[in-house]
Amino acid sequence: MTTDNRDPWLLTPGPLTTSLTVKQAMLHDWGSRDVRFIEMTARIRSSVLALAGGEGTHVAVPLQGSGTFIVEATIATLLPRDGKLLVLVNGAYGHRMVKMCKYLDRACEFMEWAEDVPVNPAEVATHLEQDKSITHVAVVHCETTSGILNPLSKIAEVVAAENRSLLIDSMSAFGALPVDAREIHFDALMASSNKCLEGAPGVGFAIIRQSVLEKTSGNSHSLSLDLYDQWKALDANGQWRFTPPTHVLAALDVAIAEHHAEGGVAGRGARYADNGRILIEGMREMGFETLLPDNLQAPIIITFHMPEDPAFDFGKFYDRLAAMGFVIYPGKLTVAPSFRMGCIGRLGADEMRGALAAVKTVIAELGVTRLGPLKAA
Amino acid sequence: MTTDNRDPWLLTPGPLTTSLTVKQAMLHDWGSRDVRFIEMTARIRSSVLALAGGEGTHVAVPLQGSGTFIVEATIATLLPRDGKLLVLVNGAYGHRMVKMCKYLDRACEFMEWAEDVPVNPAEVATHLEQDKSITHVAVVHCETTSGILNPLSKIAEVVAAENRSLLIDSMSAFGALPVDAREIHFDALMASSNKCLEGAPGVGFAIIRQSVLEKTSGNSHSLSLDLYDQWKALDANGQWRFTPPTHVLAALDVAIAEHHAEGGVAGRGARYADNGRILIEGMREMGFETLLPDNLQAPIIITFHMPEDPAFDFGKFYDRLAAMGFVIYPGKLTVAPSFRMGCIGRLGADEMRGALAAVKTVIAELGVTRLGPLKAA
Repeated sequence: MTTDNRDPWLLTPGPLTTSLTVKQAMLHDWGSRDVRFIEMTARIRSSVLALAGGEGTHVAVPLQGSGTFIVEATIATLLPRDGKLLVLVNGAYGHRMVKMCKYLDRACEFMEWAEDVPVNPAEVATHLEQDKSITHVAVVHCETTSGILNPLSKIAEVVAAENRSLLIDSMSAFGALPVDAREIHFDALMASSNKCLEGAPGVGFAIIRQSVLEKTSGNSHSLSLDLYDQWKALDANGQWRFTPPTHVLAALDVAIAEHHAEGGVAGRGARYADNGRILIEGMREMGFETLLPDNLQAPIIITFHMPEDPAFDFGKFYDRLAAMGFVIYPGKLTVAPSFRMGCIGRLGADEMRGALAAVKTVIAELGVTRLGPLKAA
Repeated sequence: MTTDNRDPWLLTPGPLTTSLTVKQAMLHDWGSRDVRFIEMTARIRSSVLALAGGEGTHVAVPLQGSGTFIVEATIATLLPRDGKLLVLVNGAYGHRMVKMCKYLDRACEFMEWAEDVPVNPAEVATHLEQDKSITHVAVVHCETTSGILNPLSKIAEVVAAENRSLLIDSMSAFGALPVDAREIHFDALMASSNKCLEGAPGVGFAIIRQSVLEKTSGNSHSLSLDLYDQWKALDANGQWRFTPPTHVLAALDVAIAEHHAEGGVAGRGARYADNGRILIEGMREMGFETLLPDNLQAPIIITFHMPEDPAFDFGKFYDRLAAMGFVIYPGKLTVAPSFRMGCIGRLGADEMRGALAAVKTVIAELGVTRLGPLKAA
């Protein structure tokens, strides 16, 4: 892997390291109402729809902004004003959806599991049986708080069995972990340009069941975030209602082509799985411990316990790794002191081994010897 | 002017033609929580604040998304739930703010002038005297619907005299037309990366009076669009709450430096004024007529009446100009059939003359001879 520049490698959950060719796509200016750009938008919409297996049942609706924008927009557009959302929480991104509902003033409740415990579909089934007022269920595919993979198929089964509407935040997983509308019943799936599709940040999209979206006029609390209106306008003349991030979309267009060339979801997922395995094995060899057992770990971002050795100063560790060309990510856990290293983006085995070598050098420099987990204060 | 590529010149109100160096800033990947990016965000915030003359009184709050996102976010954050907004309308962007208030379910009314008539400050004063329930007033600096310049100083005077809060949508003017908080009393001014600052689209910002913003906690209808929360988070640790468009911001950082190098608002405004003059004179020489008299015309985008000659087919005119390397813009007027040509972006006298030569060629090819205004059907 190479980006042919001297930027540090980003071992983060995104924005992440992209290919040089993806970035070079941004060396052009596009008229947002010009036919060439209209064609690009259509191509991106149909590509991400196909990636989700949604052709014929769903439509792809892109939205300016970060992943949070498309998540909020999807909830606000799909949840009727008198609907009630159940959020399945095992990390910060689940909690964020609950917070959104407070802003939206929509009925919402949540079930919570610890950050290192996957959502339990049987418990969800029981809850849905008991509370018939719940109309929609939202879950995070891979919670980057910990890096845990939630059991999407089983969750979708129980939600479908109870005849509720499922919204999946697949932000950090889409493009690397399979999620196919022909196999997993969902009404909406949210993702973004700058995660496993390896584009630049600035646009998100939702894959929404068309028969559901058709009935959502008037639901949204916001003009900017109204996905019904966004969809209707795009379908009317192929143009965005409001100025799109043209350069970011040009980058995404190339990124999707490169994703296809790598073998799609299977190919990309295999490289990330390799990256994750190399990283975990190498860190464990040094004595670091992962938060999660391997069977719960998604190949997206790995959470490591902060070492107990008082010589381990995370700020210094981070800065020295960055100086050696590897940017890592702070922890977000509430259960234990931790840090994270991503294995997504335009990175391969060489970069993972390079990161491991850098970690080894830095812990030696810092005089860190005891790498076992620091307990929570 | 050169962008060193073969993209068409964008004679549009943005996204527009940017410099090659602005685009090259996007050839790098940035960790959004890394210190280098935090410094970049701080630099951009202080630069746009200084450009608005808001140092010491206002703060700059950036937001992911298009201009519409920052306008909606500013209204929603500044207008209390029991506030009432008066929108001064003479084009589509004024109407859009009224539409936002309907989404927001906030009290709103509007005064309207024709698209070729500037907002009348005396009438605004009278209205404010009569309706004491109005708490905030919103106006568009330059309405790109027509290209008209609204009398900002006088509007600000009457709003301040009536002790109401003024919000200025300066999207298409900021950076080229002066608007200084030390001379014009406003509580918020909204602008974006991809207009007269000549950056890439994907981020907007509001310059908000700090003493006002401090009291807006809980006003916003939306987590994503909550500028109080956005400001507090940025001030706490310099980081964005949610993934920022890193590449777009890197481009904006360079664009602001190039704006400064051109002589700031005065320098940039002078080039655009030259562009506008060359364009208007050349089009008039051929027989085209502008919608606006020169004293109402901002040097941003020029609206021309559609020629009366039935041989003038706008679709063909547009396509042939695009094939010759000049992308123009359709009309948005309700009062008369029209089209628009922008004079902003990385364009100078040579490109304006090139566009004029192309127009001359195309109208000859189409056999258009009568260029006087087509009357509305």
